[in-house]
Amino acid sequence: MEYAEPMSVTVVGSIAFDAVQTPHGGRERMLGGAAVHFSLAASFFDEVRVVGPVGDDFGEPEYAVLHGRDVNTDDIEHVAGGKTFFWKGVYHENMNSRDTLETDLNVFEHFDPKLSQASKDCDVLFLANIFPALQLNVRKQCEQARFVALDSMDLWVNIAREALVAAISAVDCVILNDSEVALFTGEREVVAGARKIMEHGPSAMVVKLGKYGAALVTADESFWIPAFPVDFVTDPTGAGDSFAGGFVGCIAAHGGEATLETLKLAMAYGTAVASYNVEEFGTERVARLTGPEIVERVHELRSITAFETPEVALKA
Amino acid sequence: MEYAEPMSVTVVGSIAFDAVQTPHGGRERMLGGAAVHFSLAASFFDEVRVVGPVGDDFGEPEYAVLHGRDVNTDDIEHVAGGKTFFWKGVYHENMNSRDTLETDLNVFEHFDPKLSQASKDCDVLFLANIFPALQLNVRKQCEQARFVALDSMDLWVNIAREALVAAISAVDCVILNDSEVALFTGEREVVAGARKIMEHGPSAMVVKLGKYGAALVTADESFWIPAFPVDFVTDPTGAGDSFAGGFVGCIAAHGGEATLETLKLAMAYGTAVASYNVEEFGTERVARLTGPEIVERVHELRSITAFETPEVALKA
Repeated sequence: MEYAEPMSVTVVGSIAFDAVQTPHGGRERMLGGAAVHFSLAASFFDEVRVVGPVGDDFGEPEYAVLHGRDVNTDDIEHVAGGKTFFWKGVYHENMNSRDTLETDLNVFEHFDPKLSQASKDCDVLFLANIFPALQLNVRKQCEQARFVALDSMDLWVNIAREALVAAISAVDCVILNDSEVALFTGEREVVAGARKIMEHGPSAMVVKLGKYGAALVTADESFWIPAFPVDFVTDPTGAGDSFAGGFVGCIAAHGGEATLETLKLAMAYGTAVASYNVEEFGTERVARLTGPEIVERVHELRSITAFETPEVALKA
Repeated sequence: MEYAEPMSVTVVGSIAFDAVQTPHGGRERMLGGAAVHFSLAASFFDEVRVVGPVGDDFGEPEYAVLHGRDVNTDDIEHVAGGKTFFWKGVYHENMNSRDTLETDLNVFEHFDPKLSQASKDCDVLFLANIFPALQLNVRKQCEQARFVALDSMDLWVNIAREALVAAISAVDCVILNDSEVALFTGEREVVAGARKIMEHGPSAMVVKLGKYGAALVTADESFWIPAFPVDFVTDPTGAGDSFAGGFVGCIAAHGGEATLETLKLAMAYGTAVASYNVEEFGTERVARLTGPEIVERVHELRSITAFETPEVALKA
């Protein structure tokens, strides 16, 4: 596609060290966090600025991963004397569910996002999963953003529903998984649940279905895409945020205009980047991913979902 | 499409009365069974003959449902003094899993399929879920069938694996759900699991993913289709067999030639018929379904999965 000038994307969220165990191995300490996975994924599409807190343990090797993909880290807030958010989890045999073994919020506990003017001036904004009142606060600072998407989690549905509704009301697109939608709305059906959430304002919603893919719901339409069938899932950590990065990045690359056709294509780009993410631990695969590899998988996604509909002569 | 002469489809399997409870209500006794659901679904495409046993309690109202869709019932075996297979189950809140409360095999326990010459002369054969040695026996009697598909269940994987492998080796296509594939092969990934099963001979495999849709796997390709997003799932009973009926029926309507394009289209037809099946209890919806309604939903499935892939300018 063609567009006049590059868009800028700002993401606000967690920067973390993760420890994971899967049936295939693990890592004791790897770069992670929603804002990191999102940034790397979105970096293929446009200029990305990441806003989030780190501690003294966050150093050159971690910055190097972000800079390797040209992510602007000026708004990473270094909290002196603090430690970076740490998460430890173990994946079950089916890889579609996991248990959290340890969560040390550390510097993330008192995170109050401070955006530079450049970050506030973003064209497209992604509010990764943080306390919803902070999401709303950030959203208000980025007044001129053309497209704003938000992720959240079951915790906020349970303990901060009102703040979550307020944040949702201020964005264009909400990204949740199907169990979060069911928890939020009491609706089992994806489309009905998404539409209930959209009553608060957003014009689109993405419902993530884990290893089964994702659904896009707008006022009048739905769109469904499977997860790309990789040969081997090594580590699902960050898949949802990589999806969000590819999805939001694609919309940014289309000038922030979320037409139905662009949203559908964005679903494919998100799916493609997420599929690379799960092939190795943490950010390892996406850090050395290339644009052509993403495009290749988008084309493959089209080929494994497209069918022609010649008339079959049906009786009666 | 055009074809020279009508194909005939034979299905061998259970004919049953079902009792179901769902979160939305239930039925104490309704017509069911794999062969019944398959027959009704396949009846939109070609001539269908159903082979299965019934007892004295199976009468005119039940025959009327099958005859209402022009299903040939000459090979329904009436076991005098016997009772028809009875199954009772309850669906959980998410509608994607269920518990069996009661299974009375009755006349199904000693079922030994007897095919008339007309049933043996079928062009396309579907072996619904019965003891695999019987499936193999039937398959051998239908020597000239151009396309043969088989369904099975976890029970046979556990207690009759060798017989199941023998049956699988004699068919063109196997239809199982993802948990059965994982149980059979130890593979979590759909494509890898399907290919392991295909090592025994079949050239294609359908992996049913419940409310998430289904995947088709061939030697070189995979194809994924979501479940059609109905407004309300009333009763999933028979959805898998309705899917099989639409799938196999579509292949029959294409002269039994399972090219990749036909298999993909068949996935859409199976999905469409199954989506109607779940909207009401048992056979209630499909019994009054029309061909144009099926075609309409196939087109809708295309529209909710298709996306265009213009180039997005990716960095690096």
